[in-house]
Amino acid sequence: MPRQTSRDLRNESRFEVLHALFTLGPSTRQEIAKHTGLSPATVATLVTQFLSEGVLRIATIEQNTVGRPYERLTIDPGRGRILGIDVAETYVDATVYDVLLQPLGQSQVMLDEHQNGQTYVVDGIVRAIDAAIADGGTTRAQITGVGVSMPGQVRPDAGVSVFAPNWDWHDVTIEALLAERLGLPVYVDNPLKAIALSELWFGVGRTTKSMAVVNLGTGVGAGIVIDRALLRGETNNAGEWGHTLLQLDGRLCRCGRRGCVEAYLGVCGLQTTLAEIDPDHPALREAQQPGFVAAVADGLTRGDSALAELARRTSHYLAAALGDLVNLLNISHITLTGWTTAALSEWLIPAVRSELPDHVLPGSLPDLTVEASKVPGNPVALGMAAFSLEQFLGTLGLASKASLPATGRRLRSPV
Amino acid sequence: MPRQTSRDLRNESRFEVLHALFTLGPSTRQEIAKHTGLSPATVATLVTQFLSEGVLRIATIEQNTVGRPYERLTIDPGRGRILGIDVAETYVDATVYDVLLQPLGQSQVMLDEHQNGQTYVVDGIVRAIDAAIADGGTTRAQITGVGVSMPGQVRPDAGVSVFAPNWDWHDVTIEALLAERLGLPVYVDNPLKAIALSELWFGVGRTTKSMAVVNLGTGVGAGIVIDRALLRGETNNAGEWGHTLLQLDGRLCRCGRRGCVEAYLGVCGLQTTLAEIDPDHPALREAQQPGFVAAVADGLTRGDSALAELARRTSHYLAAALGDLVNLLNISHITLTGWTTAALSEWLIPAVRSELPDHVLPGSLPDLTVEASKVPGNPVALGMAAFSLEQFLGTLGLASKASLPATGRRLRSPV
Repeated sequence: MPRQTSRDLRNESRFEVLHALFTLGPSTRQEIAKHTGLSPATVATLVTQFLSEGVLRIATIEQNTVGRPYERLTIDPGRGRILGIDVAETYVDATVYDVLLQPLGQSQVMLDEHQNGQTYVVDGIVRAIDAAIADGGTTRAQITGVGVSMPGQVRPDAGVSVFAPNWDWHDVTIEALLAERLGLPVYVDNPLKAIALSELWFGVGRTTKSMAVVNLGTGVGAGIVIDRALLRGETNNAGEWGHTLLQLDGRLCRCGRRGCVEAYLGVCGLQTTLAEIDPDHPALREAQQPGFVAAVADGLTRGDSALAELARRTSHYLAAALGDLVNLLNISHITLTGWTTAALSEWLIPAVRSELPDHVLPGSLPDLTVEASKVPGNPVALGMAAFSLEQFLGTLGLASKASLPATGRRLRSPV
Repeated sequence: MPRQTSRDLRNESRFEVLHALFTLGPSTRQEIAKHTGLSPATVATLVTQFLSEGVLRIATIEQNTVGRPYERLTIDPGRGRILGIDVAETYVDATVYDVLLQPLGQSQVMLDEHQNGQTYVVDGIVRAIDAAIADGGTTRAQITGVGVSMPGQVRPDAGVSVFAPNWDWHDVTIEALLAERLGLPVYVDNPLKAIALSELWFGVGRTTKSMAVVNLGTGVGAGIVIDRALLRGETNNAGEWGHTLLQLDGRLCRCGRRGCVEAYLGVCGLQTTLAEIDPDHPALREAQQPGFVAAVADGLTRGDSALAELARRTSHYLAAALGDLVNLLNISHITLTGWTTAALSEWLIPAVRSELPDHVLPGSLPDLTVEASKVPGNPVALGMAAFSLEQFLGTLGLASKASLPATGRRLRSPV
């Protein structure tokens, strides 16, 4: 029977060479061969092809006192621009990258979390993209692909937002809507897949075999990496840790089930917990979630006792729910990301590290690490740009179908 | 960097040919080529080698009216015997198999669940093995390997029972103890890995890409298969679904944490639930767990109302906890096994199927199936025999180190 793989980075020689250059930066043929495990002869042949195709260029030539001069190769950054878009319930972040995934420009458009119309959301995405293109000194003609992360359940193979609970969206053909509005190739996926890919390319995933990249924001979830490969699941929905149980028959979650982790660790969950502690707390008067989280961080800095209790309970919930991930998957790394993490990690992470051993089976504990993500910038936008780039590389002189990433399809062209 | 794999069945041609014969039964070279995806020429070469080595023999020769006669090949069942041992808290099941994993003889020795000494448990294992060998009309000299499943956390690479909560065992070198007592090569692993392998070889795993094989007994847990490969985790502890949360700060679990799934769905959990419903129920007077489960099944058949409420609550707990597995892993199949399943599946499975959609995100629900395992006999013993056989095949004319299964080691020889 045919073997199938979940790898988004395929073990294909041409792709491996290009990916090595992302990981290593400008490199010699010898360094590429060592990194990829390909033979020096294979690397030399492929590099010659890439140079003739204009995909690679020579970055530097160095001369030692003895021996031949050696060349450092790099992907030609002039080959195009990539957009990575993080669409959340409360904002759209857009970043323009070159093909080395260096950011050139960015923008943010706030969304009203109480609006849910398709036109409202698409308009916000388009405005963010236009502003990012202007900020990056780029033109739309230079953009080779747009990777768009949509909240909730997404089928990248169909370009569909299957279910976005906060907006009550069902089966919205978002990729076609965006491709039409933008006149650009669009690839949609889910933020959990994007954050996992950003950690695989630029974070602890470069050296880690298994990890969960845990997002804490309006929604919560985990990008799961097993044996260096992104876990997608049968319908791209793996990682919905936010919809595993913390408390059977507990708080009503926006997914409709009771007791989900998200009902305690999503921003609405934090608001509910604070209301249980002090229903008149001033932070609860913030109309939008980012304002609430900022007020919590401010209050914790000032030593507000109700917020200290909120941090204590939230850390307890988080340690317990992360313990479940470790016990089920026996992963070695947990990386926390998302805007709640960015605001509150100094209160949450030490407490979680302290409590986690109480929740994890002893044999799964050795070498377990929990830390905030060190991926620079917005990891969702970066991961989406990396997905889009994987597909773009598939068209960059990589004629063989086998070299396309495992998503098994090309970018949807504008209609 | 070197790539690592979690596959216990390696994509290695010689192993693939042998494994195809397990899956297909006696087969022609053409059928093997079709099943493995190897070229007919490669299969012909490997079969010739195996025949000359005595690993394979010709099972039948058939003659059509036209064309050449064709041979059906089989692994020579005379090449040895394999023991598969399921050690649980309450019993030891031992089965003798031929190298086609057909059972030849078996035995069961009951263990007192209140005893935990190493000598007591090892004695029980040895008695079960001796009785199975006698029942199978086999001699100890014919046994080529013994696969032993131990409850709790096991490191097969070290042959150690890391933690067995019911016995309070820590870092017991069980493999060496058994190899010394038996004078036979021993391989130890965990029942969750064994049930997953038995489903991969003989159950729904033959046609399923991803599944959880859920064991319900004294302990509960899941053998997880992702992309047709067994998920082991960093320290072989993946699948400890029994120690994920059902109820934060809920019932005390024997692992020391509060609120674990096992505290509700393990047999002790069922006893606790029944005691909450009717503390004087006669089923609670059974001294040993198998007697309790049998009494529950009997009572349900008779329409006992307290036991009907026990089944209702247990199904609710099970549906919720299985929902977590689906939401996190987005698997397509759940197979239930274990002796609680064997006794109570007719009450639990229909109720779980009915409630599960309430716990699963809509995008993860299509094509989800929940059913009792159809693997014949004891799946833990069968899976352990399959592990042992994988290692035995590694010595059966398979000289190349690359053909060994991914556990990366040979059987521990007797000391």
